[in-house]
Amino acid sequence: MTRPPIPFPPALTSTQNARVKHAKELRLKKYRQRHGEFVVEGETFLRQGLKAGFTLKQAFVLDTAFDNRLMADLFEQAVLAPRNTVLTNSHVQAAVAGKDNPQPVIAIFAEPKPVLDDHPLETGQLWVALQEPRDPGNVGTVIRTADAVGADGVILLGPSADPWSSDCVRASAGSVFSLPVIGASLEDFNIWRAGGPESQCLGLALEGSEPYQKASYSAPLILMVGSEGSGLPDRYMEACDGLVRIPMPGMAESLNLAVSTAVVLYHAAGALGRLDSDGVKRSPLAFKNTK
Amino acid sequence: MTRPPIPFPPALTSTQNARVKHAKELRLKKYRQRHGEFVVEGETFLRQGLKAGFTLKQAFVLDTAFDNRLMADLFEQAVLAPRNTVLTNSHVQAAVAGKDNPQPVIAIFAEPKPVLDDHPLETGQLWVALQEPRDPGNVGTVIRTADAVGADGVILLGPSADPWSSDCVRASAGSVFSLPVIGASLEDFNIWRAGGPESQCLGLALEGSEPYQKASYSAPLILMVGSEGSGLPDRYMEACDGLVRIPMPGMAESLNLAVSTAVVLYHAAGALGRLDSDGVKRSPLAFKNTK
Repeated sequence: MTRPPIPFPPALTSTQNARVKHAKELRLKKYRQRHGEFVVEGETFLRQGLKAGFTLKQAFVLDTAFDNRLMADLFEQAVLAPRNTVLTNSHVQAAVAGKDNPQPVIAIFAEPKPVLDDHPLETGQLWVALQEPRDPGNVGTVIRTADAVGADGVILLGPSADPWSSDCVRASAGSVFSLPVIGASLEDFNIWRAGGPESQCLGLALEGSEPYQKASYSAPLILMVGSEGSGLPDRYMEACDGLVRIPMPGMAESLNLAVSTAVVLYHAAGALGRLDSDGVKRSPLAFKNTK
Repeated sequence: MTRPPIPFPPALTSTQNARVKHAKELRLKKYRQRHGEFVVEGETFLRQGLKAGFTLKQAFVLDTAFDNRLMADLFEQAVLAPRNTVLTNSHVQAAVAGKDNPQPVIAIFAEPKPVLDDHPLETGQLWVALQEPRDPGNVGTVIRTADAVGADGVILLGPSADPWSSDCVRASAGSVFSLPVIGASLEDFNIWRAGGPESQCLGLALEGSEPYQKASYSAPLILMVGSEGSGLPDRYMEACDGLVRIPMPGMAESLNLAVSTAVVLYHAAGALGRLDSDGVKRSPLAFKNTK
């Protein structure tokens, strides 16, 4: 077994260890919020988080992963500083992951706590705002789509699924590390919008009067999407300049939240001329991490 | 407790009962395929299945659900025929569902076994063909989207996720009961297509040369979508008349399969003029069920 030329990290062999218990607890939203930390599984997300400047709090590395060349790359970075990295066996790693066949690397990052004030609305931008989304998989898929289309951020309005849950991080395919995902109240949203240039806020809801493909789009644009099924509550609708709907000539009476967001978001991006710059990538955002 | 005016069904109190064991086994794909049956949870899916003409093989009804008026509606239909319906307690119902807090109604239907020959390609149609999709949630979400946009069917090409898994049925929001979902080999697909009117088969893949929003669309149209990440294998590409891609000016390198299918499917439906007939519903399809 080849050892990297750094101080050898401590080994954990007990699932009762405090660090293991801490990682297990972070599966629950209330512990993530209390500690301001979240867990990602796998080397890809670890690399993405480090590249985006997230603060690594802890890494659990399966001892057998030491033989892996890719792992060695990581060890030469900040990852294996002795204080925040531990070696595990498969038993402990499974306890940390909460499942059999865990990833050989599991990491705990500090949650970024972005607020709207850090990301003022600017000319030409495109944002997505989800009204009280409940399903973390849907939230992650919307974040991934917003990242792909080159949107400037995703706002989670009101009580929402936690974007730092493992389901959301996985569904985002790591896009939670690429663009701002900001929780805000509707009041904060309205203040943020009022502080920027003139903008269009379009609501997407079943009760929308205009088919999305016939609407006019102008930047900066915020696409506000209602919860699946129940549509936009009145006070959210009042924040919108117009409401669009997706025609459903078939038999299904609704669409998945991430699907409906994607259909209108891509159409809007096309209408705004943002799809023609294929290949132009925006710069990674520097997050303000909690320490 | 109000009893419906029909022969009282037998009660099950043991999780070791053969019917309970059978339902549990149907959670596995190989048992579903062996028996040609699948399980749905909840009254909504049971109603949708019955309305679509699916053959009910078995219903498990929690005894306390007898007090529910909606349940009584069902009992007056075919559901509570003594031979195929049993009453359970919460313990047995949880065993059937494989989880705590089970739905008060769990049903076993015969799988329809539609083949392409039963659904010839016709003038003006719109179909979706997924190349070897692996994730049942994605397949269900595509089926739901195809149903909403008024597509004529979904074809699962090659080894694919089982559309009759509970994850797929749930993600489809019951649309598996609304339009044909047909498993086929690429060879069968090519024969089916050759037997119909002249058609356009457009492949959607990362390596597509033309941005989807600039492509031409003509009906009958088949949108063939490659597996997430890996794109379309050569022999599938050869079946296509052209390849389109979804521009990703942002940082994400791919989109979720159901999202990318929806973006292009809705765009194609708009280009074909199919979104203007909002509110025109097609008739439910009569399935050929296995007995």
